[in-house]
Amino acid sequence: MGQVMPHWLTKRASLSPNKVAIETETGESITFKQLEEMSQSYARKLSTIGVKKGDHVGVLSFNELQMIVTIHALTYLNTTAVMLNARLTEAELLYQLNDANVTFVLTGKDIHLNDYENMQSAYKVLSFSDVMCEVETTTDLLEHIQLTDPMTIIYTSGTTGHPKGVVHTYGNHWWSAISSSLNTGLHTDDKWLAMLPIFHVGGLSIFLKSVIYGMSTFLVESFEASRVNRLIIERKITIVSVVTVMLQQLLADLEQETYPNTFRYMLLGGGSCPEQLLLEAKSKHIRVIQSYGMTETSSQIVTLAFADALKKIGSSGKPLFPAEVNILHKDADGIGEVCVKGPMVTNGYYKNERATEESFVDEWLRTGDLGYLDEDGFLYVVDRRTDLIISGGENIYPSEVEHAIMQIDGVLDVAVVGQADNKWGQVPVAFVVQVNNLKEKDILTFLKRKLATYKLPKEIIFIDELPRNASNKIMKYKLRQTDEVRRK
Amino acid sequence: MGQVMPHWLTKRASLSPNKVAIETETGESITFKQLEEMSQSYARKLSTIGVKKGDHVGVLSFNELQMIVTIHALTYLNTTAVMLNARLTEAELLYQLNDANVTFVLTGKDIHLNDYENMQSAYKVLSFSDVMCEVETTTDLLEHIQLTDPMTIIYTSGTTGHPKGVVHTYGNHWWSAISSSLNTGLHTDDKWLAMLPIFHVGGLSIFLKSVIYGMSTFLVESFEASRVNRLIIERKITIVSVVTVMLQQLLADLEQETYPNTFRYMLLGGGSCPEQLLLEAKSKHIRVIQSYGMTETSSQIVTLAFADALKKIGSSGKPLFPAEVNILHKDADGIGEVCVKGPMVTNGYYKNERATEESFVDEWLRTGDLGYLDEDGFLYVVDRRTDLIISGGENIYPSEVEHAIMQIDGVLDVAVVGQADNKWGQVPVAFVVQVNNLKEKDILTFLKRKLATYKLPKEIIFIDELPRNASNKIMKYKLRQTDEVRRK
Repeated sequence: MGQVMPHWLTKRASLSPNKVAIETETGESITFKQLEEMSQSYARKLSTIGVKKGDHVGVLSFNELQMIVTIHALTYLNTTAVMLNARLTEAELLYQLNDANVTFVLTGKDIHLNDYENMQSAYKVLSFSDVMCEVETTTDLLEHIQLTDPMTIIYTSGTTGHPKGVVHTYGNHWWSAISSSLNTGLHTDDKWLAMLPIFHVGGLSIFLKSVIYGMSTFLVESFEASRVNRLIIERKITIVSVVTVMLQQLLADLEQETYPNTFRYMLLGGGSCPEQLLLEAKSKHIRVIQSYGMTETSSQIVTLAFADALKKIGSSGKPLFPAEVNILHKDADGIGEVCVKGPMVTNGYYKNERATEESFVDEWLRTGDLGYLDEDGFLYVVDRRTDLIISGGENIYPSEVEHAIMQIDGVLDVAVVGQADNKWGQVPVAFVVQVNNLKEKDILTFLKRKLATYKLPKEIIFIDELPRNASNKIMKYKLRQTDEVRRK
Repeated sequence: MGQVMPHWLTKRASLSPNKVAIETETGESITFKQLEEMSQSYARKLSTIGVKKGDHVGVLSFNELQMIVTIHALTYLNTTAVMLNARLTEAELLYQLNDANVTFVLTGKDIHLNDYENMQSAYKVLSFSDVMCEVETTTDLLEHIQLTDPMTIIYTSGTTGHPKGVVHTYGNHWWSAISSSLNTGLHTDDKWLAMLPIFHVGGLSIFLKSVIYGMSTFLVESFEASRVNRLIIERKITIVSVVTVMLQQLLADLEQETYPNTFRYMLLGGGSCPEQLLLEAKSKHIRVIQSYGMTETSSQIVTLAFADALKKIGSSGKPLFPAEVNILHKDADGIGEVCVKGPMVTNGYYKNERATEESFVDEWLRTGDLGYLDEDGFLYVVDRRTDLIISGGENIYPSEVEHAIMQIDGVLDVAVVGQADNKWGQVPVAFVVQVNNLKEKDILTFLKRKLATYKLPKEIIFIDELPRNASNKIMKYKLRQTDEVRRK
């Protein structure tokens, strides 16, 4: 029941043809009918270059209108979009492209193809505008969506150091959108400002909600606090998705002002929010809905209503309507592994049964985070999964950085931990044991070829030995203490 | 995916414990937490009298708060509620109770048990308040809803004259609620006034939306235009479900006034709306959303936005987001049988495979209505199914009335048609061929024992012979003409 439905964009264009789907800063204003026509036309051009049903197509782009058109076009051809983080290095991208069995890679206007020579020799790489110059081929476009079909693959790193491709079905995205609307309502004049990267599920989800809800969006290509504040105030924005660092800068920029009454809320993802920031938002009458989620949950799965924000400081909130949270392997204090369940949770990782098996207990997704539920059922996360570092909303898995550093000749041991940072929330710091008299810049030069800039350690600290416990596990909390003491 | 979810009321009480779920005219104001407690307590009392998982329990009541509590309580025991039209005669009810394998019947405060002696001897009949006096039995209450499980059975008549039990799964009701929210939004301050009978799916659906959305409702036990207008204006009502006759009276009563700006829309079901009435609503700045649906579609499945109402006079609109409409067996003008599909459509009739088979072509439900789609995809219904008469929002199937009249000694032939009526939209009129010199009152006296009052012919017209075509089918349109000529 409900496993098949009309194609979302086609249906929405039929129901709300003249409603604005996307506005941009350059003055574009695209209705749902126009978005449908652009996407269908683009699908026919993609067909001309050979994209066909079942293909896995990489999308490598920063936020831009044509990126959204491309994603819809790929659905019309019944292909799976592999959403690539445009901040990754070529080496990181090549791993994902290979793992995801990608054939074509489509790139945005701000991707400089010269930087991706190896990718170009191994894959059919075309810019969005290259495709735009093609003629249209008559081809069957998808009319019905099977909710069980894969729609996107988005990579996330993990404890193993190898990124894993999270497969989102249409159903995962559908239920994510529906659950969100049951949480915060769905006002007929909503306009959601999107500045989070669309290559992350949180940014992508805004544009899927748009067609499912019939909701207007405002696309922002890059974040800059004062510009975004002006847009929120002048363009009747009602909802904005932010990460902590953005919220901080938006509030700092607001000074005496606040948003119009029509503004509804900030949806805050990607890490916890300091109490001070919540109080500041409150003083400016800005409602902040904190959320907890990950790529595997197709964006938020647990949220904290603004009404509860100051009563439940530090809590992530309660699971969305069709979702559940459970704490497995509780200790005496009720703290255990946070597990979640619901129709927005992925069925598993692409071609990676082992990781899938490890990540699920029955139908419960193991988040790897430690936490507990209070007497009212509110979730508190006390320790992030696998020492996850969240920096400006981007996830950095220490194991991935450690894995890269270990490849350097002369490095004997390494541990990466998160350091508190005023601007980014956290930044990575590496503790390195070595024998080759390496300098910090040697290590960074090597890493720059391997890792996206945001993952590079802010500091390399050379030490003689890493603190390990009896079972030989590195005691990272000791390193964090060392780091704090050193900085005082 | 998404076939299991937390029990709706339990989940809603967890997410929105202090939000008002139901207000009443007598000043009651029940939060979701209270509604959960009342329903769970009532479930434990029902368990005491022997109601158990899998039972079919009749609910015979006019609108009242305890009726809603009872419905939720029945879900906690994993039983199926058989919603009985309280305007039916005992004979009509006994047919449904028997057909639906009912064991218990629970009755509301306005049901006079003396009128149901045969029912009492055949079934365990208890009033809501009888049950309230019981002690609570410790019993397992349902924690998770299986969307594929049956939730309600509601009878609808049809061409055969025998009412058929439409089985609604939890999923049918869920998707109906979700589809409706995608159509008209879900505002955080919505308050839906419910005066349609809860024993019909349109009235029931308001209270299921309430727990799924976390939306406040205002329960009205009986309709009276000036009282309801005062409630709408003074109690911050944002949405009201109406049938045409109610809308007519509400508008007539409004005179110089209109509703506050916070009022969002009237959802109009049960038959088409005269243009004059739409214009009158428009002049009073009241948005009317016309809808098309039936018991089988768990309320609305096609709706006409108010923005299109005057551009597409006479149209029923477009199918809701996950739904589709199709015209089968089209004639040269594109007119054919209206068929609908979607996750809110029933899987079939209880214990009636033949009727189920006849009603579905693949996954398309045959509505029996004739209609066409215009070039923009708007549905126009040109002829109601099986000469259906819609009187004050109640469906009257001529075949059912004809069947009853044929049981009278001396009646040789009969045909029932709808006559236009200023107050009710339509009323039934019977054309009778007889040999026993029966009088109108003889026939009505007999029928009163068999049929609900609203189904009784407003007039009995005795004629010598019914007009039949070559294939011996009664030409009802000729009777309607006869009737019109006669009344001029």
